[in-house]
Amino acid sequence: MNFLEERIVKDGIVKEGNVLKVDSFLNHQMDIELFDQMGAEWKKRFAGKPINKILTIEASGIGIACVAAQHFHVPVVFAKKSKSINLDGEMYVAEVESFTHRCKNNVIVSQKFLGAQDHVLIIDDFLANGCALQGLIQIVQSAGATVEGIGIAVEKGFQSGGRSIRNLGYQLESLAIIESMDAETKEIHFRKQ
Amino acid sequence: MNFLEERIVKDGIVKEGNVLKVDSFLNHQMDIELFDQMGAEWKKRFAGKPINKILTIEASGIGIACVAAQHFHVPVVFAKKSKSINLDGEMYVAEVESFTHRCKNNVIVSQKFLGAQDHVLIIDDFLANGCALQGLIQIVQSAGATVEGIGIAVEKGFQSGGRSIRNLGYQLESLAIIESMDAETKEIHFRKQ
Repeated sequence: MNFLEERIVKDGIVKEGNVLKVDSFLNHQMDIELFDQMGAEWKKRFAGKPINKILTIEASGIGIACVAAQHFHVPVVFAKKSKSINLDGEMYVAEVESFTHRCKNNVIVSQKFLGAQDHVLIIDDFLANGCALQGLIQIVQSAGATVEGIGIAVEKGFQSGGRSIRNLGYQLESLAIIESMDAETKEIHFRKQ
Repeated sequence: MNFLEERIVKDGIVKEGNVLKVDSFLNHQMDIELFDQMGAEWKKRFAGKPINKILTIEASGIGIACVAAQHFHVPVVFAKKSKSINLDGEMYVAEVESFTHRCKNNVIVSQKFLGAQDHVLIIDDFLANGCALQGLIQIVQSAGATVEGIGIAVEKGFQSGGRSIRNLGYQLESLAIIESMDAETKEIHFRKQ
């Protein structure tokens, strides 16, 4: 097991309905030293890629992306989930569905901050059915920019998101891929990497 | 002028209605090296305080808080703006009004991540009328925890939030305090610190 898998076994909580709660270290309370380790690991896995920008999505992707960005020395852009009156000018928009919140959102990025010259690493905390991720990829494509890779903290390997994204040819690096988990026994099985 | 004031003059955009757009480096695209400088400055200003946790609020506070946290070696908790089905258990709740979005939100923090033993530094990107900040202070108080200080990137000194918070006796350290700005001349005046 790697450092993130170990941490999930130690502090993650398996709930009914294939819910994994990692809110004590990943997406409500955040362990910044863990995020730093994750950044170092992605830096290794994406070595040699000409990444000049990181793209993430609010809210729980932001902390991970910002700490990871220190290993890449690039700015982070976060996609917003609703139109704000402060976000004027032209925008890239993609519609995504949220599994957690059971609703559809427009995901938007100002055109000022993403363009054809950009080589983008997408970072997010979770990958399940991949809707949010597909929205982010769509936004990078609308900008004429290049997706150099995708870094995910926790992938639910038993849902289809990861497979679809890999089938499209993207380098998707999930630091922990859950094959199965059992709410009764609390057991979590990870995909061998 | 300090490093943040200089950056605001260089890249901030003054709009009608006392709106300052800093979305190219602070709250949409994020300059991580700038956030690191901000963290170093808060570490200096809060030297000697027994801070063991940073509290912020989604979305644009998160990146700043996470990078700043590396100077304090403490975890970050971010308050959420709406009830998520993944956030079960007991919660602290405060109602806050958003100037930007013109609506009221419940701001919530799980009781698991804030308690009487905590000495909290609150960090956020903007302070105007102070509603969000008052909500965060209320949450820290509900937890029986101690507010050791408040770090803000940009304070609108011509609105009442900062004065109210300082009158309550909190150590509020805003790295840039705007006394006035002019959408026509594009001039920004900062409070001397």
